[in-house]
Amino acid sequence: MGQLLDLRPGDDAERLGAMQPGQRLARGVVRHLSSSHGFACLEEFSPTRGLRTDVCALGPKGEVWVVECKSSRADFQSDGKWQGYLEWCDRYFWAVDGAFPQELLPDGTGIILADAWDAVIHRPAPEERMAGARRKALTQRFARCAAQRLSYARDPGWSAG
Amino acid sequence: MGQLLDLRPGDDAERLGAMQPGQRLARGVVRHLSSSHGFACLEEFSPTRGLRTDVCALGPKGEVWVVECKSSRADFQSDGKWQGYLEWCDRYFWAVDGAFPQELLPDGTGIILADAWDAVIHRPAPEERMAGARRKALTQRFARCAAQRLSYARDPGWSAG
Repeated sequence: MGQLLDLRPGDDAERLGAMQPGQRLARGVVRHLSSSHGFACLEEFSPTRGLRTDVCALGPKGEVWVVECKSSRADFQSDGKWQGYLEWCDRYFWAVDGAFPQELLPDGTGIILADAWDAVIHRPAPEERMAGARRKALTQRFARCAAQRLSYARDPGWSAG
Repeated sequence: MGQLLDLRPGDDAERLGAMQPGQRLARGVVRHLSSSHGFACLEEFSPTRGLRTDVCALGPKGEVWVVECKSSRADFQSDGKWQGYLEWCDRYFWAVDGAFPQELLPDGTGIILADAWDAVIHRPAPEERMAGARRKALTQRFARCAAQRLSYARDPGWSAG
C-alpha cells in the first residue's frame, strides 16, 4: 500500500528507480490499456481475500481484464495462485518482457509484451465472461478501492492518522 | 481536474489555503463518511453529462449518497441543478457550516454540518433507491473515474502528455 500511494513528486527516473521489475511492467501495461483500449486500471487490487492482482483493468463496457506481470522464469514458476484469478476476470493475460521464455506460459491465456514505458498485446486472451453477480461485486469493490486510495493520497494528514 | 489531482506535498495549512470554501466542507464530509460510515468518496464526480456532484459516496453495500456543499446563501441560491442529482443517488444531502441559514434547505433532503476537518449528519436523508440498471452504470462510471484519476496521479509524466 505504501508504494502504491507514494505520490511524492520526482522525475520519472526517480519513480522508476523505486520500482520492482514487475511494477515496471505493470506501469507499461497500465499506460497501454488506458491509452489504446480505454481501460481504467488499478494495480495490486485484491478481488477477494487472499488474491492480489498485479493489474486489474475495467473497460468501457464493464469488462474486466486481469494482467499478471512476470519479470523472470523464477518469478513465474513461484506463482502458485494465478489460476485463482481466472474466475475474477473476463480475460486473463501475462505481461512479460521480450527476454521472457514465452513457451512457459500456458495455453488459453493472453500475452502482453511490456516494458516500463509501454506495452502491446502479443497474444489475445480468450473470453470467459464472469456471471453478473460476481461482476457486480467486483466492480463495486474496485470502485471503493480506487476511491479510497485517491482520498488517502489527497488528504494524507488525516487518513494516515 | 487540476485541483483534484494536485497531490504535491505540503503541510495541511498549505493544502487548506488552496481550497475554495466548498472544497473545505467537502474534505470534512469525505473524512466523516469514510471513517464513520465506511463510504468510499469521490469529489467532483460527474454521474452523467452536465452534472458534477461535490461528493459522491459509495457505501459498503453499494449504496450511493450525493452531498452538495454550500458555503453561503448565495452559493445555495445560485444552484439551479441540484434536483438533477436526486435521481443519481439513494440519499441526498447538503453540507453546510454552522452559520448557514438551514431554513433555506428543502424538506426531503439531508443536512450534514461540516468544516474542513470533520462533519456530522445533522438531519438524515430519506432513501429513494435507484433502479438496478442505473446503479450498475453509476458504479461502473465511479470505478473508472477513480482509477483513472489515481493512474494519472501515480504516473503524471505520461498521463499529462
